Amino acid sequence: MTEIIVQKFGGTSVGSVERIDAVAEIIKEASKSKKIIVVVSAMGGETNRLVKLAKHFDKDPDKREFDALVSTGETVSSALLAMALQSKGIKARSYSASQISMRTTDSYSKAKILDVDADKILNTIKDNTIPIITGFQGVTAGGDVTTLGRGGSDTTAVAIAAQVGAERCDIYTDVDGIFTTDPKVVPNAKKLDSITMEEMLELASQGAKVMQTRAVEFANKYNVPVRVLSSFNDGSGTLISQKDESMENSVVSGIAFQKDQVKFTLHGVGDTPGTAFKILGPISDAEVEVDVIVQNVSVDGKTDFTFTVASEDQDVVNKVIKTSKNDVQYKDLIVNSDIAKVSLVGAGMRSQTGVASRAFKALSENDVNIQIICTSEIKITMVIDEVLVDKAVQVLHEEFELEK
Amino acid sequence: MTEIIVQKFGGTSVGSVERIDAVAEIIKEASKSKKIIVVVSAMGGETNRLVKLAKHFDKDPDKREFDALVSTGETVSSALLAMALQSKGIKARSYSASQISMRTTDSYSKAKILDVDADKILNTIKDNTIPIITGFQGVTAGGDVTTLGRGGSDTTAVAIAAQVGAERCDIYTDVDGIFTTDPKVVPNAKKLDSITMEEMLELASQGAKVMQTRAVEFANKYNVPVRVLSSFNDGSGTLISQKDESMENSVVSGIAFQKDQVKFTLHGVGDTPGTAFKILGPISDAEVEVDVIVQNVSVDGKTDFTFTVASEDQDVVNKVIKTSKNDVQYKDLIVNSDIAKVSLVGAGMRSQTGVASRAFKALSENDVNIQIICTSEIKITMVIDEVLVDKAVQVLHEEFELEK
Repeated sequence: MTEIIVQKFGGTSVGSVERIDAVAEIIKEASKSKKIIVVVSAMGGETNRLVKLAKHFDKDPDKREFDALVSTGETVSSALLAMALQSKGIKARSYSASQISMRTTDSYSKAKILDVDADKILNTIKDNTIPIITGFQGVTAGGDVTTLGRGGSDTTAVAIAAQVGAERCDIYTDVDGIFTTDPKVVPNAKKLDSITMEEMLELASQGAKVMQTRAVEFANKYNVPVRVLSSFNDGSGTLISQKDESMENSVVSGIAFQKDQVKFTLHGVGDTPGTAFKILGPISDAEVEVDVIVQNVSVDGKTDFTFTVASEDQDVVNKVIKTSKNDVQYKDLIVNSDIAKVSLVGAGMRSQTGVASRAFKALSENDVNIQIICTSEIKITMVIDEVLVDKAVQVLHEEFELEK
Repeated sequence: MTEIIVQKFGGTSVGSVERIDAVAEIIKEASKSKKIIVVVSAMGGETNRLVKLAKHFDKDPDKREFDALVSTGETVSSALLAMALQSKGIKARSYSASQISMRTTDSYSKAKILDVDADKILNTIKDNTIPIITGFQGVTAGGDVTTLGRGGSDTTAVAIAAQVGAERCDIYTDVDGIFTTDPKVVPNAKKLDSITMEEMLELASQGAKVMQTRAVEFANKYNVPVRVLSSFNDGSGTLISQKDESMENSVVSGIAFQKDQVKFTLHGVGDTPGTAFKILGPISDAEVEVDVIVQNVSVDGKTDFTFTVASEDQDVVNKVIKTSKNDVQYKDLIVNSDIAKVSLVGAGMRSQTGVASRAFKALSENDVNIQIICTSEIKITMVIDEVLVDKAVQVLHEEFELEK
């Protein structure tokens, strides 16, 4: 059989009937040489409209009902895109999660994909019909509708690409590809032709906003090549490859940053085995993703334990920590929501020394104080004052000459 | 088990979040003494919004995709209504057609209900949880989403009431009940406390607009008492009963009328067995509902065959008739879309003579010319010029003293 490409179109790409027409043209063109499977998000703005309706009834509406509600956005766009293709003489057929048995866990709003009925999709392709699959949606064993959480459509696309053995998964979005950093902050930020999966993982989880972390992890695990490109402009986008090819010369390949973060510091906790788990276990149970985790060296058997979460999880985490106070035994809880993260990412970093100190020097020379430092093999993350983020990103972009 | 009431809320009843709150109050109140099952339409205007999106791509979009699209309106309102009840401390759970296996034929946009999984609904009730079921939707054996056609939510409600053995099906709408005729045309039209199923059938199919014909037929067939009442005002509405109770004194109980009709006359067809079938068979195959059918006495073995359909079916019927010209052999086809139907309905009519002639006299004295007359045991239908409808209704309402 001809090779299969999975194409995923995000909310801005299908934000209006005119945009849906444009996307149908892209699909039509691609379908001339390849078998195409399409995954589609809700029309831009639609999910927010539905969320607003729900919030009228409850600030924190029942998650089962919430998922049933917001998942309709993808059902609408998939049917419309199928109609758009049909109007151009291309056979197409929309499928909801339930129709292709996109089975997930029953963890509403944050469901994880378990399985998908590849046969139904492959039979559609064999019939020279393009399946238009709803992203973001899933269905539990009991038949309840779930959603995969923010950016879940990327995960849907990669999961399907893995399951059908696609040649590649093309993630169409409103940017031309992955840049060294956000061009809004650094105007001469450069588009990367390719990037390693590992780098992309670090970039995505740090808020590069182009593709969901979980989708990149999925792609990595199932060895699915992913390309990120624009549905608005022509161009080859950025290929996210398993292999470390073009990166050998660049120490730092990109700078990611993320605002809307909250830092929790538990001051004076016991430096004993199990403390970290006692703190983070209940938070993980509440399905909150913890980001940076730092524990300083202990003084007199007491230490400070710090972690960051997304701002929207602040209330939940606050409640969880107060509930577990007896268990954890800390002196003070310090919460700071005026912070942001900046990260240097680069597969070349691991073979280079001095990247960190060069970064710290450049920032200190520009009066950016670093509150927390946390490093991995291919990433250096710094937590700084939120108002200094743009400046820090600009300084680092120049320091590592990413515009070249 | 406590007796079950099925409550159905139409589009205007759930037209805004504030209306959904009001409906939740009605349900909450009713749930104090009965077990409640709710069937809900899309929020008023939502279906039209979706239809408009579809029409951008195709004037006559693919029906499978169209149904997948427009059925999302009910999914949205059912989830929102469940949230509204939960916010008032009432346990509720939304169900789509697929989740309660509301199986239908695969005749998209005009699907007929075959079966429904009453167990899932009954188990929800047993758990003191109110099931909020999407009206209008169905699902085929193959898992495709279907819709039941205009006003299909009424049919959903009655089908569920029949299947679970409900005590009654309450159809909440934006009118206070069934009136002797449309109060917009005759200001002193009177609300009826009860009406027989047969009368309602005639009234509904003649465009009384309060409840879908198919739903009334369903109710009749499965012996489900139905009540029509307002979700905006208090009141007991109109009970549609199997028995002919309160009607014994009234000869005519109501006047129905319908504009948006087209009359087709096939002039000079052979008055031979099978002609009617040859004409109507292909129209029925095209899933068009034919309304009044009249054939005049034959002259020289040739006759005129006349029938009416809804205006929106005019193009389809035109095409069908032209295709079957060789088969049917008619001299001329006369199409008139400036017509309307007016019907007198009353169970008392069958035991009374002179109703028809009294009606004809009143109309002729007021210069309303009758083009076609067609009578049944409890109904007299007259096709007249569309511009004379209001006048005809007023004249008849007065003639039969329905305001009393």
